[in-house]
Amino acid sequence: MQTWVEEVTGNFYGSKYQVKEILFQEKSAFQTVAVVDTTALGKMLLNDGLVMTTERDEFVYHEMISHVPLFAHPNPQTALIIGGGDGGTAREILKHDSIQSCTLVEIDEVVVRASKEFLPETACSYADKRLHLHIADGVQFVKDTQEKYDLVIVDSTDPIGPATPLFGREFYNNIKKCLNPNGIVISQAESPFYTIKSQSSLYQNLKELFSHVSLYNYSNLTYPGFLYSFSFASMGITPFEYFDPDKVHQSAIDFKYYNPEIHRAAFSLPTFQLRNLEGRTLEKTKEFSRYTL
Amino acid sequence: MQTWVEEVTGNFYGSKYQVKEILFQEKSAFQTVAVVDTTALGKMLLNDGLVMTTERDEFVYHEMISHVPLFAHPNPQTALIIGGGDGGTAREILKHDSIQSCTLVEIDEVVVRASKEFLPETACSYADKRLHLHIADGVQFVKDTQEKYDLVIVDSTDPIGPATPLFGREFYNNIKKCLNPNGIVISQAESPFYTIKSQSSLYQNLKELFSHVSLYNYSNLTYPGFLYSFSFASMGITPFEYFDPDKVHQSAIDFKYYNPEIHRAAFSLPTFQLRNLEGRTLEKTKEFSRYTL
Repeated sequence: MQTWVEEVTGNFYGSKYQVKEILFQEKSAFQTVAVVDTTALGKMLLNDGLVMTTERDEFVYHEMISHVPLFAHPNPQTALIIGGGDGGTAREILKHDSIQSCTLVEIDEVVVRASKEFLPETACSYADKRLHLHIADGVQFVKDTQEKYDLVIVDSTDPIGPATPLFGREFYNNIKKCLNPNGIVISQAESPFYTIKSQSSLYQNLKELFSHVSLYNYSNLTYPGFLYSFSFASMGITPFEYFDPDKVHQSAIDFKYYNPEIHRAAFSLPTFQLRNLEGRTLEKTKEFSRYTL
Repeated sequence: MQTWVEEVTGNFYGSKYQVKEILFQEKSAFQTVAVVDTTALGKMLLNDGLVMTTERDEFVYHEMISHVPLFAHPNPQTALIIGGGDGGTAREILKHDSIQSCTLVEIDEVVVRASKEFLPETACSYADKRLHLHIADGVQFVKDTQEKYDLVIVDSTDPIGPATPLFGREFYNNIKKCLNPNGIVISQAESPFYTIKSQSSLYQNLKELFSHVSLYNYSNLTYPGFLYSFSFASMGITPFEYFDPDKVHQSAIDFKYYNPEIHRAAFSLPTFQLRNLEGRTLEKTKEFSRYTL
């Protein structure tokens, strides 16, 4: 007998992975959190049946969401992560010696608990003294906090369920207030293929609030669309003005995806994505999104 | 009732697409060729159940396999395509006014016939007088031909079945003999994720025969691994020495993926891929390939 876990998108596309063992399954206040061991991708974390992260390819997402802004910033000392309960983003941020404090605000303690137990290589930084975990709603947190950060990372799921406000204007207005002058906010920005509407909407929200907004791309094995983006927004700092390839080479970090060439290349977007962000529909085939179909 | 077409890789990973209609299915001397109309990706061509091309994302593959070498070459006049019976690569090549002749050698006439009938936007260049179609074995063709080409494109399927020799050394030795002095050979070079062994093996074969070899990446919606590569090999010409962004902007071609920034960015490879090509195994998780599992 073979067991498979399957994620179906918009009733028209599906990905499935052979499962060796179901390791964890628990209904939290927000979602059903599961960890399964797969043949293809090692251990896999799923929220409500949607693949969040896998042992095999998590390095791509976590390196790209972290090292791009950290090497764009001249001296990042404080970071705030909204979401990211699996710990992968915190792990990468804490590889930078300049970081003195990293605050992680995860809404669902079950995600943290499951990751600590079953994804120890991803969730390996919870014992780091510089890491401050809050089990709380990130939307409320950025509304209330008086702290300022050099880097805010919105390490969110898709804009469905508890993550919906993480794509809205009010949330980013509050984040803007938490940023130091050279501060950068990075967000999980969906895909130019299947979820271009969510991506464009986030991009427009950011453009209204920040002086500099750009998107950068990476490749992923499990998120439908596979070519995915992060947004980079600031009140002026760009991805390149303080970027120094020598600093990357001199760091002792063992990068698996990131490198100085990737830092630059990731900001080069395909023509169809550029046109979609400019609001012009380019594709001949009907545009669709998993949220609208 | 819902109908789905499903492609399973190595018995551990699967992709499935909702099917609106099965349009064509025929067993040729080489494979079973099918065209189905899908909800997600429009019309889809499959050989032996493996997705070859889809209406929705074919522009990525066909633009990247063609325009990168064509804008790298100072004056491309003659091109040879091995495989590529769907016609998409020929369509892109023939958008360049400098091209006087494009020879397409497809082993399976059923692929050409099915594409002409059901994928007319991809197979739209068969009537072009500069296009010369040969239904023949590409391996034998490059062994026998006395012609010389500015560009040879190996638009092949995965190294299984009839395409296996298209990844071997003898084949590329014969291609080398067909190249003009500034000639370039481009090949479908598999994925750094699931098929790194095939990619590394092709890369090593090319390195033994050509003075310049590099890989460049693109993103794809249907090939397992999603981050895919093309190889660029020549007896000296690089992707950049003759490359002129102004020439791209001045061309009347309506690019959907390609642009001058993408031309450069595509050659920036992730660290794990670079290390794998150098023969060092980087990934902690067991390396696997759909051909070896």
